[in-house]
Amino acid sequence: MEAALAEARKAAAIGEVPIGAVVVHDGQIVGRGHNLRETSQDATQHAEIIAIQAACRKLGTWRLEDCQLFVTLEPCPMCAGAMINARIATCYFGATDPKAGVAGTFYNLLEDSRFNHQVAVVGGIKAAASAELLQSFFRTIRAKRKAAKQAGQTRENQV
Amino acid sequence: MEAALAEARKAAAIGEVPIGAVVVHDGQIVGRGHNLRETSQDATQHAEIIAIQAACRKLGTWRLEDCQLFVTLEPCPMCAGAMINARIATCYFGATDPKAGVAGTFYNLLEDSRFNHQVAVVGGIKAAASAELLQSFFRTIRAKRKAAKQAGQTRENQV
Repeated sequence: MEAALAEARKAAAIGEVPIGAVVVHDGQIVGRGHNLRETSQDATQHAEIIAIQAACRKLGTWRLEDCQLFVTLEPCPMCAGAMINARIATCYFGATDPKAGVAGTFYNLLEDSRFNHQVAVVGGIKAAASAELLQSFFRTIRAKRKAAKQAGQTRENQV
Repeated sequence: MEAALAEARKAAAIGEVPIGAVVVHDGQIVGRGHNLRETSQDATQHAEIIAIQAACRKLGTWRLEDCQLFVTLEPCPMCAGAMINARIATCYFGATDPKAGVAGTFYNLLEDSRFNHQVAVVGGIKAAASAELLQSFFRTIRAKRKAAKQAGQTRENQV
């Protein structure tokens, strides 16, 4: 999860919502990803998707059956679905996502026995560090917006 | 949906499960995709993901707010999640998917009001043509497997 947090920090450094993920196979990281939605202007470029795609390339197969995925935030439906499709064995996530989480919050898609594959779920791994990264990011954005608004009002008063 | 069916036929022609999708904006197709899971050995390469990525590139934004997505088969969780993330307005699908469908079969993720965006769902568009493409594909695969098995038995008898 430390490697996933390092990925999340890379996202924050370029102004992306800080979420990071890694895929592990036989104790080795075979795929890394961090959120690149704004940079790429592509709605599918979440950390988990990028990490899964990298792992598929590295292992030369779409079947990541013996792999674990570590992600700093509870996955959204797209990323949970990608884990099911890639047959990831276990998903370890950090903070829960009250807005889009489907590994226990709104649904538990990963462990739904009606799909042809189930991904075991372990949540709350380094949850405080994951949540703090997100909170700090949004605090900074709000502060910047407030400063920009105040600067705008000052300019209006001067006109 | 005819364009999505044409994409599905492209998949069948290269031995992929025949599923196709297109994204439409202002009456124009801005993204096309067909299932490439085996060819790419990448679990994320479903028709809808490829079509959404193409549409994001074409329109230069991850927000496909005024777009419709046409897909020959009811979407899986990954693809439904990608539509929510991309803020697709409406999803028109062909055949229902009794194994992984989440636009009404197991769930209706697309219209779940707890997510920050809802995608309107219209199912059953040219459903018979979509289903026939899939059934024909699997019939051919079964026939090939049977022929291969019989050929193997014949060789065994000759030894």
